[in-house]
Amino acid sequence: MDEYLGYKGYIARILREIGAEVGDRIRISTEKRIFEGILMPREALYGEKPFIIIKLDNGYNIGIRISGKEKIEVLEKRKKRIVKTHIFRKQKKDLPRIVLLSTGGTIVSKVDYETGAVKPALSVDELLEWIPEISNIAFIDAKEILSVFSEDITPSHWEKIASEIYNEMINGVDGVVIAHGTDMMAYTAAAMAFAIKNKPVPIVFVGAQRSSDRPSTDSAFNLKAAFLVAAKAPFAESVIVMHGETSDTYALAHRGVKVRKMHTSRRDAFQSINDYPLAIIYPDKNEVKIINKIIEFRDKDKDPILENKFDDKVVMIKAYPGFQPEIIDLLVDKGFHGIIIEGSGLGHISNRVIDSIKRAIEEEIPVVMTSQCLFGRVNMHVYSTGRKLLSVGVIPGSDMLPETAYVKLSWILGSKTRDLKEIRRLMTTNIVGEINSRLTINLYPRWPI
Amino acid sequence: MDEYLGYKGYIARILREIGAEVGDRIRISTEKRIFEGILMPREALYGEKPFIIIKLDNGYNIGIRISGKEKIEVLEKRKKRIVKTHIFRKQKKDLPRIVLLSTGGTIVSKVDYETGAVKPALSVDELLEWIPEISNIAFIDAKEILSVFSEDITPSHWEKIASEIYNEMINGVDGVVIAHGTDMMAYTAAAMAFAIKNKPVPIVFVGAQRSSDRPSTDSAFNLKAAFLVAAKAPFAESVIVMHGETSDTYALAHRGVKVRKMHTSRRDAFQSINDYPLAIIYPDKNEVKIINKIIEFRDKDKDPILENKFDDKVVMIKAYPGFQPEIIDLLVDKGFHGIIIEGSGLGHISNRVIDSIKRAIEEEIPVVMTSQCLFGRVNMHVYSTGRKLLSVGVIPGSDMLPETAYVKLSWILGSKTRDLKEIRRLMTTNIVGEINSRLTINLYPRWPI
Repeated sequence: MDEYLGYKGYIARILREIGAEVGDRIRISTEKRIFEGILMPREALYGEKPFIIIKLDNGYNIGIRISGKEKIEVLEKRKKRIVKTHIFRKQKKDLPRIVLLSTGGTIVSKVDYETGAVKPALSVDELLEWIPEISNIAFIDAKEILSVFSEDITPSHWEKIASEIYNEMINGVDGVVIAHGTDMMAYTAAAMAFAIKNKPVPIVFVGAQRSSDRPSTDSAFNLKAAFLVAAKAPFAESVIVMHGETSDTYALAHRGVKVRKMHTSRRDAFQSINDYPLAIIYPDKNEVKIINKIIEFRDKDKDPILENKFDDKVVMIKAYPGFQPEIIDLLVDKGFHGIIIEGSGLGHISNRVIDSIKRAIEEEIPVVMTSQCLFGRVNMHVYSTGRKLLSVGVIPGSDMLPETAYVKLSWILGSKTRDLKEIRRLMTTNIVGEINSRLTINLYPRWPI
Repeated sequence: MDEYLGYKGYIARILREIGAEVGDRIRISTEKRIFEGILMPREALYGEKPFIIIKLDNGYNIGIRISGKEKIEVLEKRKKRIVKTHIFRKQKKDLPRIVLLSTGGTIVSKVDYETGAVKPALSVDELLEWIPEISNIAFIDAKEILSVFSEDITPSHWEKIASEIYNEMINGVDGVVIAHGTDMMAYTAAAMAFAIKNKPVPIVFVGAQRSSDRPSTDSAFNLKAAFLVAAKAPFAESVIVMHGETSDTYALAHRGVKVRKMHTSRRDAFQSINDYPLAIIYPDKNEVKIINKIIEFRDKDKDPILENKFDDKVVMIKAYPGFQPEIIDLLVDKGFHGIIIEGSGLGHISNRVIDSIKRAIEEEIPVVMTSQCLFGRVNMHVYSTGRKLLSVGVIPGSDMLPETAYVKLSWILGSKTRDLKEIRRLMTTNIVGEINSRLTINLYPRWPI
């Protein structure tokens, strides 16, 4: 069947006839409306329906149904900087080999205007067409391993993602970039920190706060920074690379176990809590500057160990005034396996709840205390409530984020042990940087006044 | 019975004999040990047991049991700045009348070294002895209305605190200062914002991150700042006044519905989220500088309205990967009255949970979406998960803190209505500044790198 720029049949014929190329500005006049925009290549994901894809001036791509009665004309030839897809197939094989694993999310999303569905695929060609500089950083491969919104990711997805990363490491990749929705990215980045031991190369999570078909997208900046880290950083940790501030000046690599999404919409939503970021990245200078202590160094001779089972019967609860003790009782009765409390202050919850917590622990359900303050460290020796909680067996979470404690407990129960004593030992031991024993009192942001 | 500096019997006699005064450095030599420290007055709270109270060089007060065999001597006379208690009884009656209501917590705690129990009482005399400058700011009265750790405060305590404040307002007080434990202070401050309508004067919450018998205490600085705000501020809102930075330079008054305890131990733990603080306070200059828009102005002619019922069957849950939908089902089955979700990003929770949420709403249980990012605003129109949640009736929480949304829903259900439509209207309407409709994207702190 006739094919041209990915289009087929009648549309391929007419586009070839008028000499249209990807990147040309074209006009399509239907009976009702006139559309103008940049001709986009036809991708498999759009199926075989008779649509032409153009990028409108507002940055959105739309698919226009072609019946045969439309007038289609080229208004302006593409600018030189837009280069055809296929020339990028010639990658430089001596560069570090980086694999991009897509799981879904805004960074790789394209709205399919036929179905309204988000298609989270991004091919190597598309990526290199979009961010040509990456071809000077790495020799890349791309795979779609999942296609879910990050809010729908579960511990079983963590197992799948860890397996895929592990396989790439075994195959000798020089770094892994994971495209992931931002909502739950920090949880997955923490999960990967625990799930693969003895990492030879970095695992770099990257996302976007604004989708790639919007003019204000942060996708390209973040992706380039992520590839720089995957290719060049001296560490082999699970990190999140995102904008460091709102403008395109630098990105930050945050340790996956010490990072949190702190804003619903800003580009610099991800921030390290109780730790400095691991590195500042200046994409325009191709520079990765280390600014914190590295825990795991890059070393391709290391053999990774996969420990990717996560228990999905762990719950997080938050202390609030009037917290109902019966909620703990219900969770125990229903057979949940572990409880993370986001306590108040130095690690407290109402004394009314202590009996229920005691019962949970007597039934071999580990209960871990973190703080909803987020910044600072749990210290349960200062006040009597804390001491009582310790005396019934609550495990203090030190300066761990509640989210990281949740992931860690889920991992311990799934991959390590269900023995309460050993759980306590592991939860209170720093494994991959999740507990920062150094004085972190100054790691507190400055609020605007 | 013989009495001297609050001491009685034998101890009073010996202290008078050696000419000891409060503030003198004394030495007590027992058979086993020698103690040196500053002589403290004997307070009623220590009972009548034979103890002398001294402040050690490390800042802690201890009670030393006196059997009669000890040698007690004055080493150094008190410095002039330490003034006797009773002269403060002469308060200036033309100053604004401020009442200090104690609920408990570190700021008014004194460890009773006989029993180890914390005594959260603070008399006017003690307060003025401790912070003499307050006598130039206000004519004060002090009452202990509760004596609980803040982690044990429940919605029924909110009702009590609101009644007490209301009574003081009715009696014509010029401002109310509430001493409160810091753990749950933000929740109570938010509750008071809703519970008293048409406030004539400010409600000023104050606490301490370090107890008042430690040298590093922030109690005095915070209390002076709180009294300045209660006496002088032009607003009549429920605010929290605490250190603005770690040193004793300025305090901040945060709107009670927009503030959160963000650090387990720093003095400047309280920070405004998605809003500026209402005022900067410079205690050394007796200055209260307004830096944000005032919503309720001070006006003693206003008649306050008490709406202090809070529903204690509201729950807060947090979205996490693998959140178990059955938790929502359990809460519905158990007859809870309202659910606040701390969703991810712009206001999401896994699509797996939507059916359970739908069922909850069908059973007339309001479900409100906030964001665990804390900064920024819920926007449920951007992604399909958000749109689905809206379509089943989830109420979007705008830029409200999860904690404030919890307090507000509890208040609406207790004091206003259980009609779902009206709940939605109230939850999405700004009442006391809890929803900030202005662009808050720049109200984001700067993290250290």
